[in-house]
Amino acid sequence: MAKDFQKNKGTSLNIPPRGGGAYTAELAPSRARVSSLYRWLARKLLDLLGNPPISLVLWNAEEITTSDQSLVARVHIHDNEVLHQLLINPALHFGDLYSVGRIKIEGDLAEFLKTVYSAIARSPKYIKLKIAQTRLFYRPSQNRLLNSRENIHHHYDIGNDFYELWLDREALQYTCAYFPSPDLTIEEAQRAKMDYICRKLGLKPGDRVVEAGCGWGGLARHMAKQYGAKVRSYNISRQQILYAREKAKADGLEGSVDYVEDDYRNIEGKYDVFVTIGMLEHVGRDNYRVLGDVIHRTLTSKGRGLIHSIGRNKPELMNAWIEKRIFPGAYPPTLREMMDVFEDHEFSVLDVENLRMHYAKTLGHWLERFNRNADLIEQKFDRAFMRAWRLYLAGSIAAFTTGSLQLFQISFTRGTNNNLPWTRAHLYESL
Amino acid sequence: MAKDFQKNKGTSLNIPPRGGGAYTAELAPSRARVSSLYRWLARKLLDLLGNPPISLVLWNAEEITTSDQSLVARVHIHDNEVLHQLLINPALHFGDLYSVGRIKIEGDLAEFLKTVYSAIARSPKYIKLKIAQTRLFYRPSQNRLLNSRENIHHHYDIGNDFYELWLDREALQYTCAYFPSPDLTIEEAQRAKMDYICRKLGLKPGDRVVEAGCGWGGLARHMAKQYGAKVRSYNISRQQILYAREKAKADGLEGSVDYVEDDYRNIEGKYDVFVTIGMLEHVGRDNYRVLGDVIHRTLTSKGRGLIHSIGRNKPELMNAWIEKRIFPGAYPPTLREMMDVFEDHEFSVLDVENLRMHYAKTLGHWLERFNRNADLIEQKFDRAFMRAWRLYLAGSIAAFTTGSLQLFQISFTRGTNNNLPWTRAHLYESL
Repeated sequence: MAKDFQKNKGTSLNIPPRGGGAYTAELAPSRARVSSLYRWLARKLLDLLGNPPISLVLWNAEEITTSDQSLVARVHIHDNEVLHQLLINPALHFGDLYSVGRIKIEGDLAEFLKTVYSAIARSPKYIKLKIAQTRLFYRPSQNRLLNSRENIHHHYDIGNDFYELWLDREALQYTCAYFPSPDLTIEEAQRAKMDYICRKLGLKPGDRVVEAGCGWGGLARHMAKQYGAKVRSYNISRQQILYAREKAKADGLEGSVDYVEDDYRNIEGKYDVFVTIGMLEHVGRDNYRVLGDVIHRTLTSKGRGLIHSIGRNKPELMNAWIEKRIFPGAYPPTLREMMDVFEDHEFSVLDVENLRMHYAKTLGHWLERFNRNADLIEQKFDRAFMRAWRLYLAGSIAAFTTGSLQLFQISFTRGTNNNLPWTRAHLYESL
Repeated sequence: MAKDFQKNKGTSLNIPPRGGGAYTAELAPSRARVSSLYRWLARKLLDLLGNPPISLVLWNAEEITTSDQSLVARVHIHDNEVLHQLLINPALHFGDLYSVGRIKIEGDLAEFLKTVYSAIARSPKYIKLKIAQTRLFYRPSQNRLLNSRENIHHHYDIGNDFYELWLDREALQYTCAYFPSPDLTIEEAQRAKMDYICRKLGLKPGDRVVEAGCGWGGLARHMAKQYGAKVRSYNISRQQILYAREKAKADGLEGSVDYVEDDYRNIEGKYDVFVTIGMLEHVGRDNYRVLGDVIHRTLTSKGRGLIHSIGRNKPELMNAWIEKRIFPGAYPPTLREMMDVFEDHEFSVLDVENLRMHYAKTLGHWLERFNRNADLIEQKFDRAFMRAWRLYLAGSIAAFTTGSLQLFQISFTRGTNNNLPWTRAHLYESL
């Protein structure tokens, strides 16, 4: 089995990211006898995970649990090798094994992941393992210009139509939405997010805005159309830039929105507003000071800025599987680490807001749409790809819900700028 | 002259803090001839300060300026030694020389200080001097229990009636107020501050609150009276504790407010809310982790916390004169440094708000009242003391206005607590 998996690895998919091999519906049943060794390993695995209310169903249908609570999910283990791999590095191998169907979850995937995330956060053994792995494998990511292009291409250039299947339909926002009220649709919440950011930036007609990393350009168009701003947006994903330009043309915004296919480090010009939504995660720890230099170089003396990024409460690597398969080079910084952007040039942090529950809700909307289109996605790519992305979305819900990931919005300005709103009340006045 | 000053130092005052010597109205005029050396030194001093629009008036009434803008203030220099001392360490010596009357300011003191603060922030020579002094003199403050008591006694035990002369009359709040609208009275703004903090903490009837450092106990009484909370407040200033207890008794709050004369490191018990307003500045950089340990030990799993503290955009020592004469042991931390409180125990920062302009306004109210009572204060202490405190208040206005000091309010909770308000809108709904 393990050999088959190795053989299949990377052969059936022709685009990154990969689910770690092909999904084989016709996996032959494992012939390994379920001995007391495997029962012991299964219990050991549950113990490592902090004994969550789940069970492991071995390949002979034998069910093992170490919890006396009612079960949230059953984990079907296809073969003995799965147990070995999970014990060695659960965070890394679970994703690949799930993607190819050697692990199957009976029950709600996101609920299962939340349960496990909560349990491991309290498991001394798991924490020890994670610290050891962080020490062993931590290498500050070196997002040089070329590297960055490859990393970004890996994730964002796999087809705009793929993202159109599950993101909001209006602005194709692939970042945390803002729900003034929790029952909004994802389209409403993404619009609210863009307005919220514009308010935090005090955006007004004629403002020159520069955006570092613009996705499919939705925020830039919103700023131009709704606020009369002149926006220049940088992005190194060609497919996103082409899409963004087409949309701007269709909306008659060619004169006020300019999409530049280039790296944020090459930003030029002077701007009243600097904004970057969901890029800092890809910038790499070594480059926060460089980003600060860029902002310093481009922002006017009364300029305002906003950084929106996934983050952490304490330093920790990105989940190994996500970093490997989904987001190469990604690292969610702590607030302490983010201060590298601000301190050298005496920027003043005005407002930090943690919106992690809004990201859990955003991801919930995405996953629901993704699941509705799962067959289509499977046809377009393959089953392993579909399962890998489903896992990534469900895992992210779990991470934001259990507090392992944060979403920080940081508003800032130059330290000497007194041209500031007196309070934050205006952010919450209805339009 | 210099000898006289040294001789007088510390002899005429019997309470700390001292203005660096007695104010001598009858200072003999300097006999030093105003040679070209002193003219050169005066210009050198103005140049070091970044050539602000001020003039130096030497002891022979000769006026020197290096700015061609209209002057904000004239600085009267009593004698040649003043020039020497200012050139060696302006931040340290200005305060003492001003206090004893060897420097006099013609013009508005706060405006003069703002002008100088703005200028030095842009003066390469001054920045170089400051960096050198920070390197030379930086010693992480060791606020051990005994030490802390001395430092706090120095500032807060100089007489409640002194503070009653210029703080708000209702709650005697010696920390930044919050002005929902800038034209509030200081009493209204301090009440608004307390309500704002209670809202940020989601305070509700029956909540058990612990407060680290409580001043004269106004917030604790407000929380008990207006929100039905049970508050235990720690403070090592005996005079403040005695005052707070008396007030609570008068208000019939003895059952719900408990003032403990002890250090925050000795806090015991379990609480739904942890709050500390204006104490972190006195805690010392080495103790932020200790404070984090205390919060971890005492906060329930769904507990909420708020830290309100003066801060910096980048690391820098407290102004040397203020640290020496007014606030021994004080250090305003950066956000990065404050993260020491949160990271070890995975607290989650929910909200950071920078209220520096509110502190400038608060200090404006204080200084106005202080000046109205200047004669009374001079009688009660002496002229040097009065001038030292006036300078400290005016200097603080300048520091907050020019962005050299910040005021951070940080709301936090445990990383796993999802029992959070959905947005911040409720903070701004009128009561």
